[in-house]
Amino acid sequence: MTSNEAKNISPVDEIKKLRLITAIKTPYLPDGRFDLRAYDHLVNLQLEQGVEGLIVGGTTGEGQLMSWDEHVMLIAHTVNCFGDRLKVIGNTGSNSTREAIHATEQGFAVGMHAALHINPYYGKTSTEGLRMHFKSVLEFGPAVIYNVPARTGQDIPTSFIEALAKDPNFAGVKECTGNKRIHGYSSQGMSVWSGNDDEAHDGRWEHGARGVISVTSNLVPGLMYDLMFGGGNIALRDSLLPLMSWLFHEPNPIPLNTALAQLGLIRPIFRLPYVPVSREKRREFVEIVEKLGLEHFKGATQIREMDDDEFHLVARY
Amino acid sequence: MTSNEAKNISPVDEIKKLRLITAIKTPYLPDGRFDLRAYDHLVNLQLEQGVEGLIVGGTTGEGQLMSWDEHVMLIAHTVNCFGDRLKVIGNTGSNSTREAIHATEQGFAVGMHAALHINPYYGKTSTEGLRMHFKSVLEFGPAVIYNVPARTGQDIPTSFIEALAKDPNFAGVKECTGNKRIHGYSSQGMSVWSGNDDEAHDGRWEHGARGVISVTSNLVPGLMYDLMFGGGNIALRDSLLPLMSWLFHEPNPIPLNTALAQLGLIRPIFRLPYVPVSREKRREFVEIVEKLGLEHFKGATQIREMDDDEFHLVARY
Amino acid sequence: MTSNEAKNISPVDEIKKLRLITAIKTPYLPDGRFDLRAYDHLVNLQLEQGVEGLIVGGTTGEGQLMSWDEHVMLIAHTVNCFGDRLKVIGNTGSNSTREAIHATEQGFAVGMHAALHINPYYGKTSTEGLRMHFKSVLEFGPAVIYNVPARTGQDIPTSFIEALAKDPNFAGVKECTGNKRIHGYSSQGMSVWSGNDDEAHDGRWEHGARGVISVTSNLVPGLMYDLMFGGGNIALRDSLLPLMSWLFHEPNPIPLNTALAQLGLIRPIFRLPYVPVSREKRREFVEIVEKLGLEHFKGATQIREMDDDEFHLVARY
Amino acid sequence: MTSNEAKNISPVDEIKKLRLITAIKTPYLPDGRFDLRAYDHLVNLQLEQGVEGLIVGGTTGEGQLMSWDEHVMLIAHTVNCFGDRLKVIGNTGSNSTREAIHATEQGFAVGMHAALHINPYYGKTSTEGLRMHFKSVLEFGPAVIYNVPARTGQDIPTSFIEALAKDPNFAGVKECTGNKRIHGYSSQGMSVWSGNDDEAHDGRWEHGARGVISVTSNLVPGLMYDLMFGGGNIALRDSLLPLMSWLFHEPNPIPLNTALAQLGLIRPIFRLPYVPVSREKRREFVEIVEKLGLEHFKGATQIREMDDDEFHLVARY
Repeated sequence: MTSNEAKNISPVDEIKKLRLITAIKTPYLPDGRFDLRAYDHLVNLQLEQGVEGLIVGGTTGEGQLMSWDEHVMLIAHTVNCFGDRLKVIGNTGSNSTREAIHATEQGFAVGMHAALHINPYYGKTSTEGLRMHFKSVLEFGPAVIYNVPARTGQDIPTSFIEALAKDPNFAGVKECTGNKRIHGYSSQGMSVWSGNDDEAHDGRWEHGARGVISVTSNLVPGLMYDLMFGGGNIALRDSLLPLMSWLFHEPNPIPLNTALAQLGLIRPIFRLPYVPVSREKRREFVEIVEKLGLEHFKGATQIREMDDDEFHLVARY
Repeated sequence: MTSNEAKNISPVDEIKKLRLITAIKTPYLPDGRFDLRAYDHLVNLQLEQGVEGLIVGGTTGEGQLMSWDEHVMLIAHTVNCFGDRLKVIGNTGSNSTREAIHATEQGFAVGMHAALHINPYYGKTSTEGLRMHFKSVLEFGPAVIYNVPARTGQDIPTSFIEALAKDPNFAGVKECTGNKRIHGYSSQGMSVWSGNDDEAHDGRWEHGARGVISVTSNLVPGLMYDLMFGGGNIALRDSLLPLMSWLFHEPNPIPLNTALAQLGLIRPIFRLPYVPVSREKRREFVEIVEKLGLEHFKGATQIREMDDDEFHLVARY
Repeated sequence: MTSNEAKNISPVDEIKKLRLITAIKTPYLPDGRFDLRAYDHLVNLQLEQGVEGLIVGGTTGEGQLMSWDEHVMLIAHTVNCFGDRLKVIGNTGSNSTREAIHATEQGFAVGMHAALHINPYYGKTSTEGLRMHFKSVLEFGPAVIYNVPARTGQDIPTSFIEALAKDPNFAGVKECTGNKRIHGYSSQGMSVWSGNDDEAHDGRWEHGARGVISVTSNLVPGLMYDLMFGGGNIALRDSLLPLMSWLFHEPNPIPLNTALAQLGLIRPIFRLPYVPVSREKRREFVEIVEKLGLEHFKGATQIREMDDDEFHLVARY
Repeated sequence: MTSNEAKNISPVDEIKKLRLITAIKTPYLPDGRFDLRAYDHLVNLQLEQGVEGLIVGGTTGEGQLMSWDEHVMLIAHTVNCFGDRLKVIGNTGSNSTREAIHATEQGFAVGMHAALHINPYYGKTSTEGLRMHFKSVLEFGPAVIYNVPARTGQDIPTSFIEALAKDPNFAGVKECTGNKRIHGYSSQGMSVWSGNDDEAHDGRWEHGARGVISVTSNLVPGLMYDLMFGGGNIALRDSLLPLMSWLFHEPNPIPLNTALAQLGLIRPIFRLPYVPVSREKRREFVEIVEKLGLEHFKGATQIREMDDDEFHLVARY
């Protein structure tokens, strides 16, 4: 089902060069469907601040709570509206090889530039199973491999990544196990993106990371741009650490979702099993924003603590 | 879930002006999935001959045999690859209002220019039900209404169409009941496309039809272009009638599918319940092609009768 | 995927013997999901009055508005709760052969006793296509073939049915073209069920029909039982004609849905494109009930005209 | 969508009493669909050896590789064929609350006796999110909670379980973190099933575990029955440890799938990302079977090493 006509087909090298990629939030309407106007607004803010690529439907974007048809639709929508200005990396990975193949094939057919592929979480598999899984999906186009053992329960071995790196569609790794691992991969010439915002500065300037696939850049894209392009900057890094720490005090994207609602950038709608952070933590976020400066939170014109009853949780959508 | 960012958003007037729209064939791989390379090739041939719009996943394109996710994917793919050169009209109609809403919303989100909407076939409904059904889908963007009682079992009354024509998203009607009905609508200023190739010439030049939504143009797009743009031309019309008659001697798209296979433009794969026409009719098609001239069958380099065992039928895909 | 363990596997002969089969209504909750408590209550009323079989998710039961997973779930639910007391005939037919195969296979796997199969409506096909379509689905178990050209736009030829009748899984025909056709089939030994309530009495007692697949029996199952089992009874037939005529004054199941709501047997929820009948026709129904006698409308304790604003239409569910 | 008619509705107490539950394997046909005949045969073997309940579509049964419609179908099939002889516990859990609700609701509607619910793996959530997630699904019927941090990346806190245990539909916990945790729960009167076969004997006889939810019982149900019902038996336990150790030397169900194929009980078909264990490990399994005695491997008439090319991997199904 491959096509030679898909627009903006990216050589894998263009993916390898990206430095600042945002794992973009998916906002919702009160009935739980996508709020595309809010989404478009968020993406425009990203573009204005220099973000070069998006992960669509990542764990941050709650791909795990989407049906595949809405997931691929969101990829196609993003390509249609913004694909000429940034790289669209669809999170078409899955712990089911069938689903990963289906979504990846569809994603490239609608014009995405690259895929993000996870190892089979929860169900897990053997090394030979991993090999077959990734082989099945890498044939369709450029792929970033995602290693996050704290979510998957299974670390992708370095030797495995090193072998996979020979595949012409291998674009690099989003690595969450720390800068030491990143250092090892980048020394071998691989593109590696830090999956941990708090380690991204050091990863970039001391350990050879190509850049970051960031959650924080949903809120302060300009500051994350400076962090990746502006040269080593310990002061900037340290000023961002309280925000980054707050964003991961509960499983991501729980704090991010709450933050965007508090900033008035999205409606305060949560798809279960996500719920807002506690009132106390919302108050803490207000303080963080005020300290860092509301002007860095692009698009926001206010910051509010918000009451519990302002949030709306949806279970059926 | 509407978006203001979708590319190439068409004012409804741009849809109204189209004259030559092809109900494009969907070609398949041996396992029944879409053959996107063959599809892209077919669309490029259409573009070269001046076709201005496509119905994606119409009855000709076998939308009725698609899952919605592959249907919307094909719309998104077509938009991505060709949406800047022709109008993409997704057949996101359904006899289920829920499905029509879902597909139409997704289709516009991925950039289609207009929707084709059928009245609820098979299940049918009352006039008030029709009204609610069309109202539910017209809010999303420009729509062509499709009336084909020989398929739906229910004629859309002229008074109903005349009322619907006031909707700002009403782009016109694909009408299959004949030129008299077309005449009546066009006299009132509506854009009407003939849904019967054999009546399209007279519809266009004598009854005010805007143009045609054509099956025949899958095979001879250049001749259909002449028929719609070249002025009244009885000789051309008459020379095409044997082909048009053959294309509808069995329910469309059975003959079209067979013809494209005989011309070597698609693999000879049929999704059931479609099957090739008989050997005798395939021989007849060879004669029709030879009489009309193979050079008019764009992209074809051969015409063959083909054996029964060259065709492959798929039931699970 | 066939199983030898499915409970209550019915020899095709048990299906052939049924006389009174109800095309059962599917009731809804306010959000459009199935109201299984109301459904169970309706089925219990059917059982009490001697109904021998159910069509689950027929056009009356609005299978055309179901996703396949909810359709098969409803079949499985009906089998689980009532499959030891009546025959469950799942309407697993489709105009897509793939979908018909998938649903039929699943339906038999969860214990349905027989399938109802329609010819491919709307998309249509050739005679050879028909043959391949029915062959693909008859292998899974007993099947009733459904001919309703006013919905499908294509009459199944008698010669076709006569050939199909040789298939060991052919259980008979639900025929809507009238008693002359029924007479012809029954003369050849086939089981035929009238699909027209108003012709069912004569079909049964004068033309050899095995019985009826009834809409009216949703309301007056006991009277329909008498009509099928009590011997020819012109007076009973004539007393029912006004009700039957009313039930088909708009496309079925529009009047039936309205009637069940007026009788308090279901919530007044409609899935679009279905809407209630007009106020005037609702008043007429009250009169019909009063004339026939509320006591025949099993389970009902009242009959009301109902206001327009008591009905709730759902488009997304 | 609840129903009072579902057959064999189990009071939660009947679930609590179960001791030997098998996480049953799902066997496949060459095209990747379910092999229901093989499945039925496996379940009959389980019944003959005294197994009291089944987890349908667990991680062992590869629920993570099923579409929900085939998953619910398998639950319904199992209920229909075997629901009067053992308890059917559908693994209708998910990391998406929407999916868990939908599947659980459908599972109970088709007659399953209880649900197995996992905490949201991979996507994870906060404690409050966990609470909302489980609350959303426990309303439908009896539920066993499944804690397996090595797969989910997130341990369910004991305090959380202790609070959840007050829910009238809480049937107990499948616990994989070891016998110490089990001891704590069982001391408080909860039903706990060991999720680790190698610890199940001690769990049962020394730590108050109610029983086991077993992988090993797919192969040697009779021996597992003795282990749970025959009194403390160190010799039996130790004789089984090599088999248990082998079954988990790669992520389950990789070894189990290979073993069942080597025993001739299923076709050697794997849905990716699962693949057979290595040749060397297959040889080891032959030795384990010979040492333990082929007669304990119910239904098997042979044990073979099998060649690599005898296994068939399916990626699209």
